[in-house]
Amino acid sequence: MSASRGLWITLEGGDGSGKTTQARLLHEWLEGTGRTVVRTREPGGTEVGVLIRDIVLHHRGDIAPRAEALLYAADRAHHVETLVRPALARGEVVIQDRYLDSSVAYQGAGRVLDATEVRGLSLWAADGALPDVTVLLDLDPATARARLDAADKPFDRLESEKDEFHARVRAAFLALAAEEPERFLVLDASRPVEDLAAAIRARIQPLL
Amino acid sequence: MSASRGLWITLEGGDGSGKTTQARLLHEWLEGTGRTVVRTREPGGTEVGVLIRDIVLHHRGDIAPRAEALLYAADRAHHVETLVRPALARGEVVIQDRYLDSSVAYQGAGRVLDATEVRGLSLWAADGALPDVTVLLDLDPATARARLDAADKPFDRLESEKDEFHARVRAAFLALAAEEPERFLVLDASRPVEDLAAAIRARIQPLL
Repeated sequence: MSASRGLWITLEGGDGSGKTTQARLLHEWLEGTGRTVVRTREPGGTEVGVLIRDIVLHHRGDIAPRAEALLYAADRAHHVETLVRPALARGEVVIQDRYLDSSVAYQGAGRVLDATEVRGLSLWAADGALPDVTVLLDLDPATARARLDAADKPFDRLESEKDEFHARVRAAFLALAAEEPERFLVLDASRPVEDLAAAIRARIQPLL
Repeated sequence: MSASRGLWITLEGGDGSGKTTQARLLHEWLEGTGRTVVRTREPGGTEVGVLIRDIVLHHRGDIAPRAEALLYAADRAHHVETLVRPALARGEVVIQDRYLDSSVAYQGAGRVLDATEVRGLSLWAADGALPDVTVLLDLDPATARARLDAADKPFDRLESEKDEFHARVRAAFLALAAEEPERFLVLDASRPVEDLAAAIRARIQPLL
């Protein structure tokens, strides 16, 4: 994506790690600098994606693991092609909640599929597109669960899986970050919200 | 799938080529021989598949080509894992309207994606599962269109594409059959219904 004039930032991490809060603060700061910002997410960042997200997160019966991975990839393909690429081509900043690192961490490491295959599937879906910066908000699962409990937020199908699963997901995220240090900014999400926001701004500033 | 006790038969060909009629006649004959038969289809052979089929065939806006291919593959993964494999393991006969050959012919040859990639995607989705027999009901697009017009059947999104597209799909189906002559039975679908049914029975009989 380096030829585009825009800037593509993804936020990764478990539920309760503070992605939404940091996306909002980053959004406000970027708009203050005069940039046009698109906030989006996967799954569900497009109209087609909302339909796919409904199937993946809220279908009552089991979904075959390969089918689940393919549905996330379909959402990704449509989202990147119809929303992300056009925004970047217009020179805008895209702030996105979750991308292919989530698929690899949740599907590959957390479930039964091969992580390399899941990554390959996502890259095919996105025709090779990778973000300029990926912020990983790293948090131990027990703290994340306590935050979600405090918020009294209903768990969806993924959130209600066991803590052991979340520990494997966390380890997978950290392994991905270690493989691509130039793309990832790894932050300890237990730090104060404003400290985290400042660290993210410091990473983004030179790219504007 | 050769280790299973069941028998898996897929029917391929353009809309209007008579797949539904031949599936019904084959079903009746097989039940008469005492076999348990499962009739199914892709997309939409499962509850999850119906939701996916609705997106692919009836969404009003455009769907990115890679997203469309991935949705078909997701339907396939869930269908093969939760319906086809269990039926074959029970020793039943599965008669299925469309499988991966349709994806390759429609998506790969008919649209913008590479046919080899689309085939690889389908095979990954199905974990390599291929039917014992694939019946290709071959018909020139003009005849198929005349049949559909006569039936006064409303065209869905794929059916309303141009005749040129259907000609490319037909050529792709014939090329696939030529590559795997041991799996395919290619029939001229303009022949009388009963002649076609007899030819199919002759191919299936030795496998029972």
